[in-house]
Amino acid sequence: MITSESIWQDISEIREKVPLVHSITNYVAMNNTANALLSLGASPVMAHAENEVEDMLDIAGALVINIGTLSDPWIRAMKLAIEKAKSKNVPIIFDPVGAGATGLRNNAIHVLFPSGPPTIIRGNASEINAAAASAATTRGVDSTESSESALDSARRLVETYGSTICISGAVDYILDSEKTVKVYNGHQLMPKVTALGCTATVLCAAFAAVNESPLEAAAGAMATMGVAGELAAESDYCRGPGSFQIAFLDSLYNLKFEDLRGKLRLE
Amino acid sequence: MITSESIWQDISEIREKVPLVHSITNYVAMNNTANALLSLGASPVMAHAENEVEDMLDIAGALVINIGTLSDPWIRAMKLAIEKAKSKNVPIIFDPVGAGATGLRNNAIHVLFPSGPPTIIRGNASEINAAAASAATTRGVDSTESSESALDSARRLVETYGSTICISGAVDYILDSEKTVKVYNGHQLMPKVTALGCTATVLCAAFAAVNESPLEAAAGAMATMGVAGELAAESDYCRGPGSFQIAFLDSLYNLKFEDLRGKLRLE
Amino acid sequence: MITSESIWQDISEIREKVPLVHSITNYVAMNNTANALLSLGASPVMAHAENEVEDMLDIAGALVINIGTLSDPWIRAMKLAIEKAKSKNVPIIFDPVGAGATGLRNNAIHVLFPSGPPTIIRGNASEINAAAASAATTRGVDSTESSESALDSARRLVETYGSTICISGAVDYILDSEKTVKVYNGHQLMPKVTALGCTATVLCAAFAAVNESPLEAAAGAMATMGVAGELAAESDYCRGPGSFQIAFLDSLYNLKFEDLRGKLRLE
Repeated sequence: MITSESIWQDISEIREKVPLVHSITNYVAMNNTANALLSLGASPVMAHAENEVEDMLDIAGALVINIGTLSDPWIRAMKLAIEKAKSKNVPIIFDPVGAGATGLRNNAIHVLFPSGPPTIIRGNASEINAAAASAATTRGVDSTESSESALDSARRLVETYGSTICISGAVDYILDSEKTVKVYNGHQLMPKVTALGCTATVLCAAFAAVNESPLEAAAGAMATMGVAGELAAESDYCRGPGSFQIAFLDSLYNLKFEDLRGKLRLE
Repeated sequence: MITSESIWQDISEIREKVPLVHSITNYVAMNNTANALLSLGASPVMAHAENEVEDMLDIAGALVINIGTLSDPWIRAMKLAIEKAKSKNVPIIFDPVGAGATGLRNNAIHVLFPSGPPTIIRGNASEINAAAASAATTRGVDSTESSESALDSARRLVETYGSTICISGAVDYILDSEKTVKVYNGHQLMPKVTALGCTATVLCAAFAAVNESPLEAAAGAMATMGVAGELAAESDYCRGPGSFQIAFLDSLYNLKFEDLRGKLRLE
Repeated sequence: MITSESIWQDISEIREKVPLVHSITNYVAMNNTANALLSLGASPVMAHAENEVEDMLDIAGALVINIGTLSDPWIRAMKLAIEKAKSKNVPIIFDPVGAGATGLRNNAIHVLFPSGPPTIIRGNASEINAAAASAATTRGVDSTESSESALDSARRLVETYGSTICISGAVDYILDSEKTVKVYNGHQLMPKVTALGCTATVLCAAFAAVNESPLEAAAGAMATMGVAGELAAESDYCRGPGSFQIAFLDSLYNLKFEDLRGKLRLE
């Protein structure tokens, strides 16, 4: 069962072991996700060259693949990294940013998913739908659909790849072949800050580096995101999306068990 | 006539329609400009690969081309994007960052301007001068010249390309073949924060996505920038360039008609 | 002798002359380092294309080479930039981010250091050790070793390349063939913010643009970093790593001689 105690156990382990999360991610999100990993207690590293990613995986505890600003050389490096991660049992966390918006993104998903089935796939409803049925066309990186609308797609991805799927939205759905967990935490300012979806993905990776259950890892990460977001919005210096993103990092860094226990809304 | 009412009309339309702004921009500015678009109410997407940019323009309401961190593959992608935007009547907003500093930037301008004449060109005086007379050499990305010193260059660009030109500075000049508008809003901390020029450019794009007059769009965007900057500087938590950039995003997000009406200084 | 007066002299000269610092740096740090240079009073420019970097050096006062997110085309551009900087006596400040973690980074160091011996090399203990003995394997970009543990490596680099070495950590060691300076300033939140090491490197570059002694430049930059960090941590709006990085920029911008004189701990 996923409880505030079990999530706190993971956070404590992250803070103690400081897992190295290797991200091949988009240019927009790099700085945010590095800071979020540091605030959580993990250690970020970015490397994207075809002749470097495999070496980096020798020291990484988790691999993040994020297709937000793609090009062919990056796709080739992602493939190499995924294959190396698979061979070393390093968890692979995949963020299909903007899936459905372009052929390049759809093709990347088609090539990369089978290369080493993702341990966790995290996206909004549009992206999960598009990742499952790449014929769909999304409207860029936002999602106007409810998380629930992507549940069928998520189940197909679970079946095909054995991945744990996280559909993020006002309610986050995290599911594998056996269970579905819902996380109700979060705040309405979160979609107004760029790269908070990408941030959720790297938190999933940090949790997956210390917890062998991808479902528990993803649910714990989404709950931590949501609670930190609520704490940020409640802070006395939050006035809008600018100060919210600052308060979010502070809240993640200062997070205490009592905060998590008091605020967790998960079923 | 451009008034606080007409500008507010555009802002309301941006917030309601949430236009997708496709940016091919520099690495330094990506995160800032994405956040500024979100705070204004628009939706950002970044894509720079030659085999992706045309697809992205199928769903974009405006295209931003910013040459701040160039390389040949990006220039080729910019050309494809511009030609696609032109064929679909998507407004093209061009930011000639550091024009005049290097041959690569000057050549990029020479190749890209004719590919699809920019709807709006926004730069500081150095950049507008260099864009008009590429023999000039600027000192990187700052401008020590007054906006006024680039008026002749701006007029040449208006004539040659039919573009609306925005020279930003202590006073912003926005001009087309018929009119010249001056915006006096802004704050002295703005040049101390990186990528605020690039931010002005993406705001021009969001306005151009909802207003068919490039002059009105650019003037509205610059006035909104300036007013949000003044509000940021006045906020109780602004102590310097770091907190200013945070307060700027908050102010943009929280902007009300009364703020705009009370502060607008435009003629 | 390095005193608060001599450091303040450099800061005043930076603010007056506004040296242009050309950085070929990693994607994660670009925005932070640009803002830190602006807050200090210098002017940042980023350019990384092989066919642009030499032109940019014609107007640059210092060159920053940072290997945090490498690829072959960037390494080639770094080599060209270093050779041009050497031929023009522009100081070269090298940040061996993640040295030892991968073959690509080690090879880059082997190729680039001899191309134009760095004026200043700044890294944490792991990186300085790995740069000196590229057989070593570091754990990404963090350092768990004390600065002191890299002193032997630093001395070898001084001998081989004639560079001034800065080992940053809880205590910063800055040494050349004649002297070793220790800077005790800084704050424990600094390693929890991404790119503050890279920020220290660009401050070294700004100081080196106005001070012909690399030892004085690096010591002044590290002292300025540390004092600004202490001021940031003491500010009434610092609650964690998020607000710390904002307060750091504000402190750097607002830095006064009295702050430096009151807080400097250097020997």
